[in-house]
Amino acid sequence: MNIKGFKFSAVEAAIKKPGRRDLALIFSELPAVAAAVFTTNQVKAAPVLLSMERVKNGQLQAMVVNSGNANACTGIQGMADARETSRLVAEGLGIPEETVFVASTGVIGQPLPMERVRKGIPPLIEGLAAGTLEQLAQAIMTTDTFAKMESRSGVAGGTGYTIAGVAKGAGMIMPNMATMLAFIITDAAVEPAFLAKAFRDAVEASFNVISVDGDTSTNDTALLMANGAAANPLIREGSAAASSFAGLLSEVLLALAKQIVKDGEGATKFVKIVVRGASSNGDAKRAAMAIANSQLVKTAFFGQDANWGRILAAVGYSGAQIDPDRTALWFDEVQMAKNGMFAGGNAEAEGSAVLKQPEFTVTVDLQLGEGQAAVYTSDLSYDYVKINADYRT
Amino acid sequence: MNIKGFKFSAVEAAIKKPGRRDLALIFSELPAVAAAVFTTNQVKAAPVLLSMERVKNGQLQAMVVNSGNANACTGIQGMADARETSRLVAEGLGIPEETVFVASTGVIGQPLPMERVRKGIPPLIEGLAAGTLEQLAQAIMTTDTFAKMESRSGVAGGTGYTIAGVAKGAGMIMPNMATMLAFIITDAAVEPAFLAKAFRDAVEASFNVISVDGDTSTNDTALLMANGAAANPLIREGSAAASSFAGLLSEVLLALAKQIVKDGEGATKFVKIVVRGASSNGDAKRAAMAIANSQLVKTAFFGQDANWGRILAAVGYSGAQIDPDRTALWFDEVQMAKNGMFAGGNAEAEGSAVLKQPEFTVTVDLQLGEGQAAVYTSDLSYDYVKINADYRT
Repeated sequence: MNIKGFKFSAVEAAIKKPGRRDLALIFSELPAVAAAVFTTNQVKAAPVLLSMERVKNGQLQAMVVNSGNANACTGIQGMADARETSRLVAEGLGIPEETVFVASTGVIGQPLPMERVRKGIPPLIEGLAAGTLEQLAQAIMTTDTFAKMESRSGVAGGTGYTIAGVAKGAGMIMPNMATMLAFIITDAAVEPAFLAKAFRDAVEASFNVISVDGDTSTNDTALLMANGAAANPLIREGSAAASSFAGLLSEVLLALAKQIVKDGEGATKFVKIVVRGASSNGDAKRAAMAIANSQLVKTAFFGQDANWGRILAAVGYSGAQIDPDRTALWFDEVQMAKNGMFAGGNAEAEGSAVLKQPEFTVTVDLQLGEGQAAVYTSDLSYDYVKINADYRT
Repeated sequence: MNIKGFKFSAVEAAIKKPGRRDLALIFSELPAVAAAVFTTNQVKAAPVLLSMERVKNGQLQAMVVNSGNANACTGIQGMADARETSRLVAEGLGIPEETVFVASTGVIGQPLPMERVRKGIPPLIEGLAAGTLEQLAQAIMTTDTFAKMESRSGVAGGTGYTIAGVAKGAGMIMPNMATMLAFIITDAAVEPAFLAKAFRDAVEASFNVISVDGDTSTNDTALLMANGAAANPLIREGSAAASSFAGLLSEVLLALAKQIVKDGEGATKFVKIVVRGASSNGDAKRAAMAIANSQLVKTAFFGQDANWGRILAAVGYSGAQIDPDRTALWFDEVQMAKNGMFAGGNAEAEGSAVLKQPEFTVTVDLQLGEGQAAVYTSDLSYDYVKINADYRT
């Protein structure tokens, strides 16, 4: 994939298991306009704290990321290590240190093995000559089982541009970011304020409507860099190409978000939860997230059990306003509940058939108003437990 | 166990699997002062709605409960079924229908099999001649693996009295009640307002500080009946025996709550979570509950993995005020984290040894104030998934 003016590299620095790339770099030949969204967890990893500062300047030229170690709960030494990493990358590239963004993912609470990071940076920079975005997507994986990439091409003022993104997820996936990293790059020329707004909106409708296990991590980061190398007429609020750019950006993020859910730890089901007829969009999202995060609902999905009662119970404690005697529920097109009760007929058999599919939609209609929301989630399987019980050992 | 003036019965009505008692009755020969706490879920089962009305009168003489069917999400027919059950019991006992309390637990969304309930009530009433509280404790079990009972004896004004309780739990265990039923009876004579207050306080410090999976059910009910058959001088606010009565009541409830956690679905660990040094007791409870409900923390407990970083991450998203650089954490007496970082030394090996025990305590000190809280939880095991994936099938 060619996104003008961007180069990539990924090397084995022995931070993760041997034989796997674990240190990666994005380099923009031109200073790029940047926007980022970070974890809401009060416990923020050192690279998050550093990158929050770096992105405030609005311009970045490089992003360095390691997997295998989160550099979280590592105190002053952790901050020093994140800074040193960024300084070494800046020196190697001959760019200002303030334009380097840093990210980490992996085990919490262990010092970053700086000897290995230091040794890895020279080959990392050399690797820019031949590296690919796909290698980078592989290098950021932790318990992910496949690399996540997505791209779209657009046209602004007759000039073509590309938006490409990579992400990693797997566990701790929960709105307001999770142990989720996403790096999006585009060669489009975009006005900074519009870029920031378009990115926030796209994150809200993608990474913030997925949930695997309800845990919000210390390291979540989504970054967008736009370097303008496509030389299109500047895209700005209200310009002809603005809405198509925002639309393509949203598509890339939503596709990555769905890939993250599909690769949720141990997931065997991909479930879209739609709540409509709520008193407000906020209520609809609360109800949808309560369903998506219920262990009892998720184990029923894994068991392919058309247990709609657990879903109504989750709606009932979600905090959303409801009238229990009006609520209706469907598995795909099969109505399971009506007026808060079993819908009757062949719903049990037909609903069970829906749940045997790898992907399906649960729709809840609260019949109170116009509020609606959609979220994406996975089931809770034996393998989720296995993966997370054994993660560090 | 003899609690004066109370009789018990439990029969097989074929609501559950054959060969298991599933319909049970408590009868007080004298009208008893009563207090009750119910689920906060907006989706409330029919027996919950009916019993909320019944307990308002403050006096009860009987409690009838079935397992195997929750009579929840069953609409108008569900209410009619709960009422009919209470009427048949009242007629059989020759007491006012308004003094009969009804409870149900089991699958949501299926009509109560009233033919079986009707047929079960005459033998249920006959059974009062020889029934035991232990049989009742068995009859209310669903996925519980053992019957939960506890009792204490006290003295008020030279007269002995007894407090006894039974409970069922297993899944959907979460504060503000869960699919949890608890029935507490005492032959002590207690002034109604004091009884209600002592019960509320005891529930707050027991059933409301446990969590198995974070789901709050449609049927949770805790009931206390005091019939005064011990003929002690009335226990009231400020009377000599008041604090010892409240203390014994709390002991019974906390013991039952701990039994529920120990019998959490698939549980292999019983974990006490203590948070201290919080800005408020509310913050301490928020942080403790976030730890207790984190799937990542609970799978680490199952894996016996001293993954303290996941615990700090849960505290970080709990909503409690924290200073990440001050937080300290212990597994039993082994300090794992200090100033938000790994405590060093032999903590890894020693902490892992603590987690190999079936019971241990996690202590988090936020070092901000005087707020503290303790909650009880279990781990998340393969068997939790298995039990809940297969529950209905």
